[in-house]
Amino acid sequence: MDTIQSDNYPIFFENSIDELANFVKQGRYSRFFILTDENTAQHCLPLVKSKIEDQDNFDIIEINAGEESKDIDFCIGIWKMLIDFGADRKSLLINLGGGVISDLGGFAASTFKRGIDFVHVPTTLLSQVDASVGGKTGIDIDSIKNIIGTFTQPKAVFIELGFLDTLPAKQILSGLAEMLKHGLIQDANYWNQLKNSDLSKPSAELVHRSVAIKNKITVEDPHEKGIRKALNFGHTIGHAVETYSLINDKDHLSHGEAIAIGMICESYLAHKKTGLPAEELKEITDTLNNLYPRYTIHESSFDTLFEYMKKDKKNQSGNINCTLLTNIGQCNIDNICTEAELCESLLYYINL
Amino acid sequence: MDTIQSDNYPIFFENSIDELANFVKQGRYSRFFILTDENTAQHCLPLVKSKIEDQDNFDIIEINAGEESKDIDFCIGIWKMLIDFGADRKSLLINLGGGVISDLGGFAASTFKRGIDFVHVPTTLLSQVDASVGGKTGIDIDSIKNIIGTFTQPKAVFIELGFLDTLPAKQILSGLAEMLKHGLIQDANYWNQLKNSDLSKPSAELVHRSVAIKNKITVEDPHEKGIRKALNFGHTIGHAVETYSLINDKDHLSHGEAIAIGMICESYLAHKKTGLPAEELKEITDTLNNLYPRYTIHESSFDTLFEYMKKDKKNQSGNINCTLLTNIGQCNIDNICTEAELCESLLYYINL
Ligand SMILES: NC(=O)c1ccc[n+]([C@@H]2O[C@H](COP(=O)([O-])OP(=O)(O)OC[C@H]3O[C@@H](n4cnc5c(N)ncnc54)[C@H](O)[C@@H]3O)[C@@H](O)[C@H]2O)c1
Ligand SMILES: NC(=O)c1ccc[n+]([C@@H]2O[C@H](COP(=O)([O-])OP(=O)(O)OC[C@H]3O[C@@H](n4cnc5c(N)ncnc54)[C@H](O)[C@@H]3O)[C@@H](O)[C@H]2O)c1
Ligand SMILES: [Zn+2]
Ligand SMILES: [Zn+2]
Repeated sequence: MDTIQSDNYPIFFENSIDELANFVKQGRYSRFFILTDENTAQHCLPLVKSKIEDQDNFDIIEINAGEESKDIDFCIGIWKMLIDFGADRKSLLINLGGGVISDLGGFAASTFKRGIDFVHVPTTLLSQVDASVGGKTGIDIDSIKNIIGTFTQPKAVFIELGFLDTLPAKQILSGLAEMLKHGLIQDANYWNQLKNSDLSKPSAELVHRSVAIKNKITVEDPHEKGIRKALNFGHTIGHAVETYSLINDKDHLSHGEAIAIGMICESYLAHKKTGLPAEELKEITDTLNNLYPRYTIHESSFDTLFEYMKKDKKNQSGNINCTLLTNIGQCNIDNICTEAELCESLLYYINL
Repeated sequence: MDTIQSDNYPIFFENSIDELANFVKQGRYSRFFILTDENTAQHCLPLVKSKIEDQDNFDIIEINAGEESKDIDFCIGIWKMLIDFGADRKSLLINLGGGVISDLGGFAASTFKRGIDFVHVPTTLLSQVDASVGGKTGIDIDSIKNIIGTFTQPKAVFIELGFLDTLPAKQILSGLAEMLKHGLIQDANYWNQLKNSDLSKPSAELVHRSVAIKNKITVEDPHEKGIRKALNFGHTIGHAVETYSLINDKDHLSHGEAIAIGMICESYLAHKKTGLPAEELKEITDTLNNLYPRYTIHESSFDTLFEYMKKDKKNQSGNINCTLLTNIGQCNIDNICTEAELCESLLYYINL
């Protein structure tokens, strides 16, 4: 698997933890810090540590697992630990974990002393194919997702597929949603390839292909002025459902599970508004509905969902904006959707 | 007074509040927000409001006056108000106030929804000649100054000298320290011009000249890799003294008062280490010591001061770094200073 050259930084796919070890041994950094959560500390940190045994200029920062940690309070905790550990401008932060770790660590690093270097070692499928590429960092406030953040590129990304061995099936499904999205918005062949693959453990080739798509789009439009909005497909409704679940469910939806619901709803909107053919709507709906567990949405929660959609960063002038497919493999950005339309699309999902 | 063209943004000196009104009336923004503190709400907001009477798409965010507000808690407060007011990516934040408002507002805006536009309307001498130019934003944590921040340029700066009429003399002195610094590090003629001016109310010409120097240096080196460090003259020791005073004194030192002390100490270091002639050390010492009130530093606080210096962002690998003059009008960056040297320079100030 070739290294992908992104906007000034490499994305490694082979011997990635060796590459990481080389990176920190080059001596460009005064100290480095490894940000982990309880799960990656258990499952991923040992391999990393074994490769940097000869280094003594680092500390570990461990946080609780879960989206609840992607919050300003945890961010402040990281900043304070960096202060206490004596981090300076030549320090490096290594984000070892899923999208929570890379978003939170990326934000903390990009603002610490007005920005220190960081790299991502994504350990979930979602963070490998999505969160670790493209330079978005972010944290939540009052459960409003990614409301605070920066656009800052990592210095490198190290993708180690072996880390996925310990990842629960629910988390594989979560990352898979973004891979399916990549096919739907950009590459019908890839969508077909995915449909015909064993998706319980995506191959290195599929991961590489997804990263290539995400990277191409984000390098072209780093600040989301245009084409990058394609990646928001499924996310206007999906984010709202995710926020809702996060607040209301004990065993809440993963990001990808919520996005899968969003993609079904928004494909329905696409059928109504941007000409997505009925048979393609059916193909998308059936594929996603088979792969993902059903989630119960009550009509009584629609108002709350709209409130979340309105607070979505993607909006302008109070309008709710969606990226909609025109065909499988092609999409159209900046489609304003009314409450009535959004409501109808949620009913479409509910009544499946 | 000519408009200065900075790195992609203009700095206005004439009819600046009319220019600001034009700027918001161009309709590029869905909403705008004016960040003030209690003093600028009283002294500066009325003029601004009178020029935008015909606008109704804005809200005011008022915070307490003082450095204590430049804290993550107030920043979170601003983020939450922006959320509640329905700010979107096309919103604008107008920072109407001194350096606290521009640093805090700049940081809040540069991270809200991964960055919304902001402009500065600096209302203190310090913020006009220094804080509003150069793209540094920042907040304090646990009284560690500017430990968190970004490099983000405003879209414009509007300098209205009339705002200085209500500014207390102590605050004029504070800004003056940076102007004197500009002369000392870069322009001996300007230093002489300042020495021979009525400094109780600096003229438009002097303000313009200082902004031009600060702007030139920061455009050349926005991320402080080299020459921008010249602006840190007086700040290694000055920041530590400022932090100390902020924590320990009821009526604490202003930024500039602390920097004036720092410049005296660091000129002493320059005499010892980088060949600043004895008569120039005397000229600097006398000028600053005459202009600024004396401040009592006890030897028993040296340890605490060193602790602050060690936590300074400018340091690398645990060394304390100073910018030192070689002559009036010229300087040398990246001079490592030992505790003994720093101690000696503080004693020089104490024994004046
Ligand atoms: N920045 C971006 O462009 C971007 C893109 C997509 C998603 N995101 C963000 O990513 C987050 C979701 O990412 P995620 O799904 O990776 O969440 P996550 O980081 O919470 O990881 C999911 C779970 O898997 C565990 N885990 C991680 N690696 C493991 C491993 N190798 N073995 C066993 N368990 C492991 C984690 O501890 C956690 O419990 C969301 O906050 C989302 O907003 C960001
Ligand atoms: N970003 C940068 O490059 C940079 C450079 C230098 C300093 N700073 C920061 O600037 C801050 C200090 O700035 P400051 O001295 O302007 O502080 P400030 O904003 O606290 O203002 C000083 C006082 O003057 C009051 N005030 C402001 N305008 C007034 C007016 N027109 N009339 C009457 N009162 C008025 C304020 O309410 C406050 O009480 C520090 O936090 C420092 O770190 C930043
Ligand atoms: Zn996503
Ligand atoms: Zn200063």
